[in-house]
Amino acid sequence: MPETVYITRRETFNAAHRLFRPEWDDRKNLEVFGKCSNPLWHGHNYVLYVTVGGEVDPVTGFVANLKELSRLVRERVIQKLDHANINLEVDFMQDRLASTENLAIGIWEQLEEAVNQMGAKLHKIRLEETENNFVEYFGKGNAFNH
Amino acid sequence: MPETVYITRRETFNAAHRLFRPEWDDRKNLEVFGKCSNPLWHGHNYVLYVTVGGEVDPVTGFVANLKELSRLVRERVIQKLDHANINLEVDFMQDRLASTENLAIGIWEQLEEAVNQMGAKLHKIRLEETENNFVEYFGKGNAFNH
Amino acid sequence: MPETVYITRRETFNAAHRLFRPEWDDRKNLEVFGKCSNPLWHGHNYVLYVTVGGEVDPVTGFVANLKELSRLVRERVIQKLDHANINLEVDFMQDRLASTENLAIGIWEQLEEAVNQMGAKLHKIRLEETENNFVEYFGKGNAFNH
Amino acid sequence: MPETVYITRRETFNAAHRLFRPEWDDRKNLEVFGKCSNPLWHGHNYVLYVTVGGEVDPVTGFVANLKELSRLVRERVIQKLDHANINLEVDFMQDRLASTENLAIGIWEQLEEAVNQMGAKLHKIRLEETENNFVEYFGKGNAFNH
Amino acid sequence: MPETVYITRRETFNAAHRLFRPEWDDRKNLEVFGKCSNPLWHGHNYVLYVTVGGEVDPVTGFVANLKELSRLVRERVIQKLDHANINLEVDFMQDRLASTENLAIGIWEQLEEAVNQMGAKLHKIRLEETENNFVEYFGKGNAFNH
Amino acid sequence: MPETVYITRRETFNAAHRLFRPEWDDRKNLEVFGKCSNPLWHGHNYVLYVTVGGEVDPVTGFVANLKELSRLVRERVIQKLDHANINLEVDFMQDRLASTENLAIGIWEQLEEAVNQMGAKLHKIRLEETENNFVEYFGKGNAFNH
Repeated sequence: MPETVYITRRETFNAAHRLFRPEWDDRKNLEVFGKCSNPLWHGHNYVLYVTVGGEVDPVTGFVANLKELSRLVRERVIQKLDHANINLEVDFMQDRLASTENLAIGIWEQLEEAVNQMGAKLHKIRLEETENNFVEYFGKGNAFNH
Repeated sequence: MPETVYITRRETFNAAHRLFRPEWDDRKNLEVFGKCSNPLWHGHNYVLYVTVGGEVDPVTGFVANLKELSRLVRERVIQKLDHANINLEVDFMQDRLASTENLAIGIWEQLEEAVNQMGAKLHKIRLEETENNFVEYFGKGNAFNH
Repeated sequence: MPETVYITRRETFNAAHRLFRPEWDDRKNLEVFGKCSNPLWHGHNYVLYVTVGGEVDPVTGFVANLKELSRLVRERVIQKLDHANINLEVDFMQDRLASTENLAIGIWEQLEEAVNQMGAKLHKIRLEETENNFVEYFGKGNAFNH
Repeated sequence: MPETVYITRRETFNAAHRLFRPEWDDRKNLEVFGKCSNPLWHGHNYVLYVTVGGEVDPVTGFVANLKELSRLVRERVIQKLDHANINLEVDFMQDRLASTENLAIGIWEQLEEAVNQMGAKLHKIRLEETENNFVEYFGKGNAFNH
Repeated sequence: MPETVYITRRETFNAAHRLFRPEWDDRKNLEVFGKCSNPLWHGHNYVLYVTVGGEVDPVTGFVANLKELSRLVRERVIQKLDHANINLEVDFMQDRLASTENLAIGIWEQLEEAVNQMGAKLHKIRLEETENNFVEYFGKGNAFNH
Repeated sequence: MPETVYITRRETFNAAHRLFRPEWDDRKNLEVFGKCSNPLWHGHNYVLYVTVGGEVDPVTGFVANLKELSRLVRERVIQKLDHANINLEVDFMQDRLASTENLAIGIWEQLEEAVNQMGAKLHKIRLEETENNFVEYFGKGNAFNH
């Protein structure tokens, strides 16, 4: 029977964003998004956890090579987000509101195929916006089973 | 296919409690509950994580409005527990031992209906008693599926 | 002999900023400030520690009333910085580069007189920009004595 | 319907290890395992989280007695690993590469039967090697269900 | 010239307390101490840092033997405070308000002589009441020098 | 009057060590150093904080360029210590017991001249061995002034 093990890599990035809908006026945006709608931006130290699952390779003892996983996350995600403006500069966020939920989904999409080609399976994206708020995403159609 | 995302809000409270059964004498209580049975109370800085799950609202980018979720948790849980005596003052703990397990279940019951009316679904209560101990509860009849 | 005790209050805020000199072109700004000069901003979850020192009041057991200190820090500092653009919106940073060093000095100046009127003495501002970088400031002319 | 609650105990240990395959030369080991293959060892402050699940005992309010669980984890795991060389001294790691994945599996095997005899069910081993890397294991044949 | 090095040991304890003056009525106590005056107690997970300074012993490489320091702190401080009621049960707090400031001073007095007999010099007590509040004390007549 | 500000950079490394005196037998080493004397080594995730002080440069807003400081710490300290055996491989520790105290002094000596050439002044080395133990060093002849 397979020994599924999950391994997680933590990376961080600092970025600016705002939450707003262009078709709404400032008052409506303020009402729905609060201070997060500030037109002059605000920002966060985001903490990202990428979890992959798989069987342990009997040759290396690894589910996935963490150096390779880290390189992949930096190339496809951190390099685009770090010290950037999520609304204006990040290609994979151009058609979405810059919420933590959507950012987690966007990061998943950036990583899924490449991680799976490493021989492991992308299992979870956890994205912390502040010490008080975080989001978890398990991929399209996936959820905790209950 | 739905995009289920989970979002978590962290809140804290400081409270006093003791673990004991009134029908047992002090020696029996000490034997089962250790120093936690001290009749003169002790206390903790509890850390509470409330996780809700749901689809991302295409208008707001949110699974749930965190300000609303935070307000709800503060009104229904934190206000009753913060700087309080769990055994003597907290209405929803009156018929239960003041263990972290029971406190997590009690908090779930305080929140379930109100969270679900927000349009999301209460998924998990995580309650940390100390840096070394924490409890997770997923609601009646729910468990990790294996 | 006096019993000097130091008490610290922690507050947090999320803000956007950039490091640049308007008289320099983008290349020169990038050379000196790196990615922190991004014209489209980036941001941080700042963590602020305000330390005040004084004798313990024999009536209250306090060096300073923490609720009052917290209120004062929120009114004079957090309200101006939270979810704001430090370069464009924060009055006390208008004549300074938005570095962590200058922000710590600016926060000191916002608080010094008001804290001292509480009967304690402002001792230190500690400001964390990320988990890897922080600044400490002890007021004009003050330093660790060696 | 049963009220399944999960309770977690955190323990720590400091140990030395190296990653290498004896049949490979140093260059091959360095290529696959990086600096972790250093023949003169390196080490970590490991953080271990042991999660057990079960119904809440109506007499004690506990899923499991944490003092007993902690004693069991210390006797069967921490005592063998703390201030030890994982490759050379830890009996249950003798036939495995000293990766975090294998260490988590080994710890599970040390605990499963004994925890289950306490009346609870071992649910998860989470093992942190550094603040940036951790592993989760749910037992043979078990995985998150999707 | 001497090589002064400072070494710090961290210990934790969980205790109940309340802030109040017996000669004041409940309303006056509530006005000054807020929710901390709750007659039914509340509590905290206190974190204690004991810092000692001295020259490095050329034979051991130590300023102080940390095991010995830890034993001393546990015997003289933690054993009295852990799972206790600070107001009612802790001998060295009987003539003082149970504020964090006074608790830090009390802990200093419990340790000063014994630490100094170890050959090091007690330098600082840092006591955290919550993640947002902490106190530092350097002994009678001592303060940061400016 | 000068505006002295202190800025701190955090770096981490994982290393193996043991505490022992070669002229003592195993029993004597065990007696003095406890489990830290294990001949087969153990290790830690060390956390290093390098604090430098100075006036804020009016052109950059910096006391020191953190990228340059980080590069310097990595070249002179982390590169030698990370995934290394402190007793056997680290040149600047060859004539000293591998205690945290001596390691902090050694790191200071590696950095002092180079940091001072950056135009700032090395102020403090803080080195954490575990979450429960850390050491602070302010340079030869320097101490907190009381």
